Amino acid sequence: MDAHTWTQTLRVDEGFRLADLDPDAKPGYDHGKARGVADLAARLADLNVLQERLFAESRAGVAKDAVLLVLQAMDSAGKGGIVRHVVGGVDPQGVALAAFKAPTAEEREHDFLWRIEKRLPDPGFIGVFDRSHYEDVLIGRVRELAPPAEIERRYDAINEFEARVAASGTRIVKVMLHISPEEQKTRLMERLDRPDKHWKYNPGDVDERLVWPQYMQAYQTVFDRTSTAAAPWHVIPANAKWYARLAVQELLLAALEDIDPQWPRADFDVESEKKRLAAS
Amino acid sequence: MDAHTWTQTLRVDEGFRLADLDPDAKPGYDHGKARGVADLAARLADLNVLQERLFAESRAGVAKDAVLLVLQAMDSAGKGGIVRHVVGGVDPQGVALAAFKAPTAEEREHDFLWRIEKRLPDPGFIGVFDRSHYEDVLIGRVRELAPPAEIERRYDAINEFEARVAASGTRIVKVMLHISPEEQKTRLMERLDRPDKHWKYNPGDVDERLVWPQYMQAYQTVFDRTSTAAAPWHVIPANAKWYARLAVQELLLAALEDIDPQWPRADFDVESEKKRLAAS
Repeated sequence: MDAHTWTQTLRVDEGFRLADLDPDAKPGYDHGKARGVADLAARLADLNVLQERLFAESRAGVAKDAVLLVLQAMDSAGKGGIVRHVVGGVDPQGVALAAFKAPTAEEREHDFLWRIEKRLPDPGFIGVFDRSHYEDVLIGRVRELAPPAEIERRYDAINEFEARVAASGTRIVKVMLHISPEEQKTRLMERLDRPDKHWKYNPGDVDERLVWPQYMQAYQTVFDRTSTAAAPWHVIPANAKWYARLAVQELLLAALEDIDPQWPRADFDVESEKKRLAAS
Repeated sequence: MDAHTWTQTLRVDEGFRLADLDPDAKPGYDHGKARGVADLAARLADLNVLQERLFAESRAGVAKDAVLLVLQAMDSAGKGGIVRHVVGGVDPQGVALAAFKAPTAEEREHDFLWRIEKRLPDPGFIGVFDRSHYEDVLIGRVRELAPPAEIERRYDAINEFEARVAASGTRIVKVMLHISPEEQKTRLMERLDRPDKHWKYNPGDVDERLVWPQYMQAYQTVFDRTSTAAAPWHVIPANAKWYARLAVQELLLAALEDIDPQWPRADFDVESEKKRLAAS
């Protein structure tokens, strides 16, 4: 299956139901883990060439394109692994990573998109949001952190915001990593079993587990309301980490292939520069 | 030679003369390229463990330590390669990279350290400055971008600034990559010979070559005035890229080993969390 077809398979279209998607599935990929790990490594070279061209285009001022990967998931679903093993393979000079935590007092005084706007990737960059403005309609909804009318307002605000960002040249790749509650339990238990993983564990993680169905409903509403042509959602079954990493890499590749960045032409006379350099 | 001794060898101490350092030398390392490349890969695992511990400590709020790598060099000396091949091996979640270009109109309205302060790494992070406040006493001095009294003022201002940053818990690792003008010519010519490298070439690079001795003098003054106990300079011969990368990695390792970060102890009761998780 080519990248474009695979990307389509993962996309949230009309009628998508999260409850029907098996977190153990590997849609669009017919091979096992060993091949998957090998494919991830093999495709990294393509990703690097495309990223460098994108960066080069922006430096030369010939294009305004950027990529924004938005990562959302329940705790321990593997966002960190995506950053480490997919994004981490790319030249750090071309990556802008933003991890959004609970908003600060200053951030809460502003509209929920205020802090998001500031972290949008510059042209030429691959931006990564580790959590995002979607927290404001996920935990925001489940924990009633804002009045219902305000939560309701945010879906349209997000769509308008993302449409504007997309129109400015940024390909928005929205990804939800989908794990099962059983898989999460296993992963959190491992964090508790290993002293070098304790720092990753937060007692609040269990509190959120207890309202898992409410979160799944909040995600479903996010997909229903904000999977747009300008910025579609992709739900990636993530019980198998290797599959999720490969799928996200493929989504990034598809976004970059869509941009199709080219090495910019020199804006100086190459031959005369060679002479000038030789004489220097 | 252990990391600490090697680090000492590269350090700018009293009486250091840049003109006496051969850019082809490999001080402190007795092996060749093949072994150097293998050592770089082998030491990456150590770097990653130390970085993760540093990050973990800061998340747990038990430490304020950070590392700041300041990279300065003539064009094509290999700053980008350091970022790609040394820093790029580290989890991007723990890295904060800042590339300083010619200051914007807004930045020029402020003191030269204004934009620098804003990009200092948070606790737990490895910050990297690709160029830095030293441009203001390098190109600033050579191209007379500020009055002599202002340039003069900056050396002490830098020392006070860095002493404050160091006192707050940030290990400042200042590195100048030292290449020969002949090596630079070769590297720039390669950029001109390859269309996929044209975007990296700037006719201004040759202009700067023409005042190479003035730059070396400006660097010597930087070393004389700003290599302090709190933030010493290291000059790394960089005609051999593999050596420079290995040496910078070693400096980062030494800084992290000096911090000696530990896995933080859980601030919750592990056994009762296991029960709570099991029941969830």
